[in-house]
Amino acid sequence: MLAKIHVTYKKGVLDTQGQAVHHALTDLGYNEVKQVTVGKYMEVHLKGLSEENAKDRVREMCEKLLANTVIESYRYTLSPTE
Amino acid sequence: MLAKIHVTYKKGVLDTQGQAVHHALTDLGYNEVKQVTVGKYMEVHLKGLSEENAKDRVREMCEKLLANTVIESYRYTLSPTE
Repeated sequence: MLAKIHVTYKKGVLDTQGQAVHHALTDLGYNEVKQVTVGKYMEVHLKGLSEENAKDRVREMCEKLLANTVIESYRYTLSPTE
Repeated sequence: MLAKIHVTYKKGVLDTQGQAVHHALTDLGYNEVKQVTVGKYMEVHLKGLSEENAKDRVREMCEKLLANTVIESYRYTLSPTE
Protein backbone atom coordinates (compact mmCIF):
# COMPACT_ATOMS: atom_id res chain seq x y z
CA MET A 1 0.00 0.00 0.00
CA LEU A 2 1.04 3.57 -0.56
CA ALA A 3 -0.11 6.20 1.94
CA LYS A 4 -0.10 9.79 0.72
CA ILE A 5 -0.17 12.05 3.74
CA HIS A 6 -0.73 15.81 3.92
CA VAL A 7 0.13 17.66 7.12
CA THR A 8 -0.95 21.30 7.37
CA TYR A 9 -1.27 23.88 10.11
CA LYS A 10 -4.63 24.20 11.81
CA LYS A 11 -6.56 27.40 11.31
CA GLY A 12 -5.31 30.18 13.56
CA VAL A 13 -1.77 28.82 13.78
CA LEU A 14 0.82 31.28 12.47
CA ASP A 15 2.34 29.92 9.26
CA THR A 16 5.63 31.84 9.11
CA GLN A 17 6.96 29.80 6.20
CA GLY A 18 3.82 30.57 4.22
CA GLN A 19 4.17 34.27 5.00
CA ALA A 20 7.81 34.24 3.92
CA VAL A 21 6.92 32.59 0.62
CA HIS A 22 4.08 35.07 0.13
CA HIS A 23 6.44 38.01 0.65
CA ALA A 24 9.04 36.51 -1.67
CA LEU A 25 6.43 36.02 -4.40
CA THR A 26 5.22 39.60 -3.97
CA ASP A 27 8.81 40.85 -4.23
CA LEU A 28 9.12 38.92 -7.50
CA GLY A 29 6.07 40.78 -8.83
CA TYR A 30 3.34 38.18 -8.28
CA ASN A 31 0.83 40.62 -6.83
CA GLU A 32 -2.07 38.30 -7.66
CA VAL A 33 -1.03 36.07 -4.73
CA LYS A 34 -3.35 36.62 -1.78
CA GLN A 35 -2.29 33.89 0.63
CA VAL A 36 0.22 31.07 0.83
CA THR A 37 0.23 28.13 3.21
CA VAL A 38 3.07 25.64 3.43
CA GLY A 39 2.71 22.12 4.72
CA LYS A 40 4.32 18.72 4.45
CA TYR A 41 3.61 15.95 2.00
CA MET A 42 4.77 12.43 2.77
CA GLU A 43 4.56 9.16 0.92
CA VAL A 44 4.82 6.06 3.07
CA HIS A 45 5.19 2.68 1.38
CA LEU A 46 3.77 -0.17 3.43
CA LYS A 47 4.16 -3.89 2.94
CA GLY A 48 1.93 -6.80 3.88
CA LEU A 49 -1.05 -4.90 5.25
CA SER A 50 -4.69 -5.03 4.26
CA GLU A 51 -6.29 -1.70 3.43
CA GLU A 52 -8.28 -1.83 6.67
CA ASN A 53 -5.15 -2.44 8.76
CA ALA A 54 -3.16 0.15 6.85
CA LYS A 55 -5.82 2.76 7.57
CA ASP A 56 -5.45 2.25 11.32
CA ARG A 57 -1.66 2.01 11.27
CA VAL A 58 -1.22 5.19 9.23
CA ARG A 59 -3.59 7.07 11.53
CA GLU A 60 -1.46 5.92 14.47
CA MET A 61 1.76 7.01 12.72
CA CYS A 62 0.29 10.46 12.10
CA GLU A 63 -0.87 10.83 15.70
CA LYS A 64 2.41 9.61 17.19
CA LEU A 65 5.05 11.04 14.89
CA LEU A 66 4.14 12.57 11.55
CA ALA A 67 1.91 15.39 12.75
CA ASN A 68 1.96 17.55 15.84
CA THR A 69 -1.76 17.36 16.44
CA VAL A 70 -1.74 20.35 18.78
CA ILE A 71 -1.08 22.69 15.87
CA GLU A 72 -1.29 20.51 12.76
CA SER A 73 -3.99 18.49 11.08
CA TYR A 74 -3.41 15.57 8.74
CA ARG A 75 -5.25 13.71 6.03
CA TYR A 76 -4.22 10.72 3.98
CA THR A 77 -5.27 8.45 1.18
CA LEU A 78 -4.31 4.84 0.59
CA SER A 79 -3.73 3.20 -2.75
CA PRO A 80 -2.53 -0.28 -3.68
CA THR A 81 1.02 -0.61 -5.01
CA GLU A 82 1.62 -4.36 -5.13
CA MET B 1 -8.09 30.37 -8.00
CA LEU B 2 -6.45 27.99 -5.60
CA ALA B 3 -3.21 26.31 -6.67
CA LYS B 4 -2.28 23.13 -4.80
CA ILE B 5 1.40 22.50 -5.34
CA HIS B 6 3.45 19.40 -4.49
CA VAL B 7 7.23 19.64 -4.50
CA THR B 8 9.18 16.39 -4.16
CA TYR B 9 12.76 15.26 -4.65
CA LYS B 10 13.66 13.84 -8.03
CA LYS B 11 14.58 10.18 -8.23
CA GLY B 12 18.16 9.56 -7.15
CA VAL B 13 18.33 12.58 -4.84
CA LEU B 14 19.07 11.62 -1.24
CA ASP B 15 16.00 12.28 0.92
CA THR B 16 17.54 12.52 4.38
CA GLN B 17 14.33 13.72 6.00
CA GLY B 18 12.49 10.73 4.55
CA GLN B 19 15.17 8.39 5.86
CA ALA B 20 14.98 9.96 9.31
CA VAL B 21 11.20 9.53 9.41
CA HIS B 22 11.57 5.93 8.20
CA HIS B 23 14.04 5.15 11.00
CA ALA B 24 11.84 6.83 13.59
CA LEU B 25 8.82 4.80 12.46
CA THR B 26 10.85 1.58 12.59
CA ASP B 27 12.00 2.45 16.12
CA LEU B 28 8.35 2.88 17.08
CA GLY B 29 7.64 -0.65 15.84
CA TYR B 30 6.20 0.08 12.40
CA ASN B 31 8.20 -2.57 10.59
CA GLU B 32 5.71 -2.67 7.72
CA VAL B 33 7.12 0.66 6.49
CA LYS B 34 9.39 0.09 3.49
CA GLN B 35 10.12 3.59 2.32
CA VAL B 36 9.27 7.16 3.24
CA THR B 37 9.65 10.28 1.14
CA VAL B 38 9.06 13.77 2.45
CA GLY B 39 8.16 16.74 0.29
CA LYS B 40 6.42 20.09 0.49
CA TYR B 41 2.79 20.91 -0.04
CA MET B 42 1.77 24.49 -0.72
CA GLU B 43 -1.55 26.18 -1.29
CA VAL B 44 -1.38 29.48 -3.15
CA HIS B 45 -4.51 31.62 -3.35
CA LEU B 46 -4.63 33.76 -6.48
CA LYS B 47 -6.95 36.61 -7.29
CA GLY B 48 -8.16 37.97 -10.59
CA LEU B 49 -6.60 35.45 -12.96
CA SER B 50 -8.21 33.24 -15.57
CA GLU B 51 -7.40 29.55 -15.29
CA GLU B 52 -5.20 29.78 -18.38
CA ASN B 53 -3.21 32.70 -16.96
CA ALA B 54 -2.99 31.10 -13.53
CA LYS B 55 -1.53 27.95 -15.07
CA ASP B 56 1.35 29.92 -16.58
CA ARG B 57 1.93 32.11 -13.54
CA VAL B 58 2.04 29.18 -11.12
CA ARG B 59 4.46 27.32 -13.37
CA GLU B 60 6.68 30.41 -13.32
CA MET B 61 6.47 30.68 -9.52
CA CYS B 62 7.51 27.04 -9.19
CA GLU B 63 10.44 27.46 -11.58
CA LYS B 64 11.65 30.69 -9.97
CA LEU B 65 11.05 30.16 -6.27
CA LEU B 66 8.94 27.28 -5.00
CA ALA B 67 11.00 24.38 -6.33
CA ASN B 68 14.72 23.91 -6.82
CA THR B 69 14.39 22.28 -10.21
CA VAL B 70 17.91 20.87 -10.12
CA ILE B 71 16.89 18.39 -7.44
CA GLU B 72 13.12 18.79 -7.07
CA SER B 73 10.14 18.26 -9.30
CA TYR B 74 6.76 19.92 -8.89
CA ARG B 75 3.18 19.36 -9.91
CA TYR B 76 0.09 21.42 -9.27
CA THR B 77 -3.63 21.56 -9.76
CA LEU B 78 -5.86 24.60 -10.03
CA SER B 79 -9.37 24.93 -8.70
CA PRO B 80 -11.78 27.86 -8.58
CA THR B 81 -12.35 29.53 -5.23
CA GLU B 82 -14.29 32.68 -6.07
